[in-house]
Amino acid sequence: MLLTIIYIIAITAEAMTGALSAGRRSMDWFGVILIACVTALGGGSVRDVLLGHYPLGWVKHPEYLVLTCCAALFTILIANWMRHLRSIFLLLDALGLIGFTIIGCQIAIQMGHGFVVSAVAGIMTGVSGGILRDILCNDVPLVFRRELYASISFVSVICYWLCIHFGLTLEWTVVTTLVFGFSLRVIAIYFGLEMPKFIYQDDDEQSASSKDI
Amino acid sequence: MLLTIIYIIAITAEAMTGALSAGRRSMDWFGVILIACVTALGGGSVRDVLLGHYPLGWVKHPEYLVLTCCAALFTILIANWMRHLRSIFLLLDALGLIGFTIIGCQIAIQMGHGFVVSAVAGIMTGVSGGILRDILCNDVPLVFRRELYASISFVSVICYWLCIHFGLTLEWTVVTTLVFGFSLRVIAIYFGLEMPKFIYQDDDEQSASSKDI
Amino acid sequence: MLLTIIYIIAITAEAMTGALSAGRRSMDWFGVILIACVTALGGGSVRDVLLGHYPLGWVKHPEYLVLTCCAALFTILIANWMRHLRSIFLLLDALGLIGFTIIGCQIAIQMGHGFVVSAVAGIMTGVSGGILRDILCNDVPLVFRRELYASISFVSVICYWLCIHFGLTLEWTVVTTLVFGFSLRVIAIYFGLEMPKFIYQDDDEQSASSKDI
Repeated sequence: MLLTIIYIIAITAEAMTGALSAGRRSMDWFGVILIACVTALGGGSVRDVLLGHYPLGWVKHPEYLVLTCCAALFTILIANWMRHLRSIFLLLDALGLIGFTIIGCQIAIQMGHGFVVSAVAGIMTGVSGGILRDILCNDVPLVFRRELYASISFVSVICYWLCIHFGLTLEWTVVTTLVFGFSLRVIAIYFGLEMPKFIYQDDDEQSASSKDI
Repeated sequence: MLLTIIYIIAITAEAMTGALSAGRRSMDWFGVILIACVTALGGGSVRDVLLGHYPLGWVKHPEYLVLTCCAALFTILIANWMRHLRSIFLLLDALGLIGFTIIGCQIAIQMGHGFVVSAVAGIMTGVSGGILRDILCNDVPLVFRRELYASISFVSVICYWLCIHFGLTLEWTVVTTLVFGFSLRVIAIYFGLEMPKFIYQDDDEQSASSKDI
Repeated sequence: MLLTIIYIIAITAEAMTGALSAGRRSMDWFGVILIACVTALGGGSVRDVLLGHYPLGWVKHPEYLVLTCCAALFTILIANWMRHLRSIFLLLDALGLIGFTIIGCQIAIQMGHGFVVSAVAGIMTGVSGGILRDILCNDVPLVFRRELYASISFVSVICYWLCIHFGLTLEWTVVTTLVFGFSLRVIAIYFGLEMPKFIYQDDDEQSASSKDI
């Protein structure tokens, strides 16, 4: 129940960030709606397709699809106010990240998968909507370059497993993971924490052919 | 039967437009064939994977795959004549858009889905081949920026549902939708009709961090 | 058994090339791991999803996923030595290409598909990991522009089918295809053999609108 509410908040927030990305590329209204849907529902769809978990969420509950379309159109209307709402969006996005992660993790566990697959399912649900958005907008996905994001998704999965392992009820596990992951994300944004980067430069003389590796 | 003929015309036309896109990027023959296949068969594959509708069209009928490969190679041969055939291609592409939409819509209905999912399936079949083509060619997908295209696919789905709702036979529904959607697309091309665009610019001072939304 | 060893070598080598690509784009560690996993396991995942062959390889054997993550992190450590190992990597990559192709082809045949679908499955397994890597790094996929690569995958499939057709045992078929394909790839690299390119330029005056085709 709590998860359903968080899921609805999360897909709405993600749809609106997707719509803004489309607006930065001057797409038409259809493009805005498509990018919004992909951002909001793409992560879950990728997870379900890779795990063979049919029917997909939005096929079973088309109302979520309608919701994201409405959120996208609503974003077009209120775009001028959006810049004043940035901090609220960062918080909603953080909530969505952890909510998506928990949902993805739970589905994998329900299907009988172990820690590794459920961790991948959780992270995938949390971050691949944003990756697909950036691919469609022809960017290098931001998620690879900004403050702790996917790694917080991963740490939340560990927290979730530890809670289950130590015998907490499902409700408490969800609440604990949410609070833990959300706080981490807020701390990461506030202090601008980043993962170490891996910077690799080929020597100039080799750069032409080095792409063959 | 009519749909099969339209489908064959459509995948041939789409394969040839895909091959031309690959040629604009100076790809080798394999790249040309791959882009052609993705453009022609990618939309249906995305739909089938998301709906869990196995086996995929080209797995069941590999002859369609062979056809698109031949169309791609044929395009390389006649590339110099292609610029004189542009208006024919625009018409074939319009026919393909509506044909793909109807096929996608029908499959979703046969699987028991309602209006929302069948609309998504129709639009997805119609436009996602072109989106995948543009992603592989590293462009922002054109479909988001040009004259009415996906929206015509959507209106065609509505036409299809209305025809079914008012008790038309399947044949008449298909013919009506085809004529209606095709005419709309031709009108849109002729008058250069476009969807309104959503243009969103962050303030300069915020632009560095605004990507975090 | 032989194939399992080759598969493990191949995913390790592909993971390391993926990690280097991510390093060229200055991604953070998570991005490096994700690109490595997609490069190593993406080809097989695309094949399994399109053929409806569940569960996917890394879902059934999560240890392969752990292996690619470790290979990615290891690559970050030894990045400075990697430039001296380029020729070894080209050979491992060639081995991987043929190994992936054979595995993809075998799986399609086991599922009862014919020549066309098994050829597509083989090529897809061999090359689509690299294509996904390049899409995530926002490049036009290299596979379309460099020396014979996908075409060697295709010729290996033909070799495989001929061996089966002439009654060779599975072991001999695999060994023959490996030696044949690997030699071809080494020859192609050594002599810089390339597929003919298809270069298509619209006339200037038409170029603005020609994108509509």
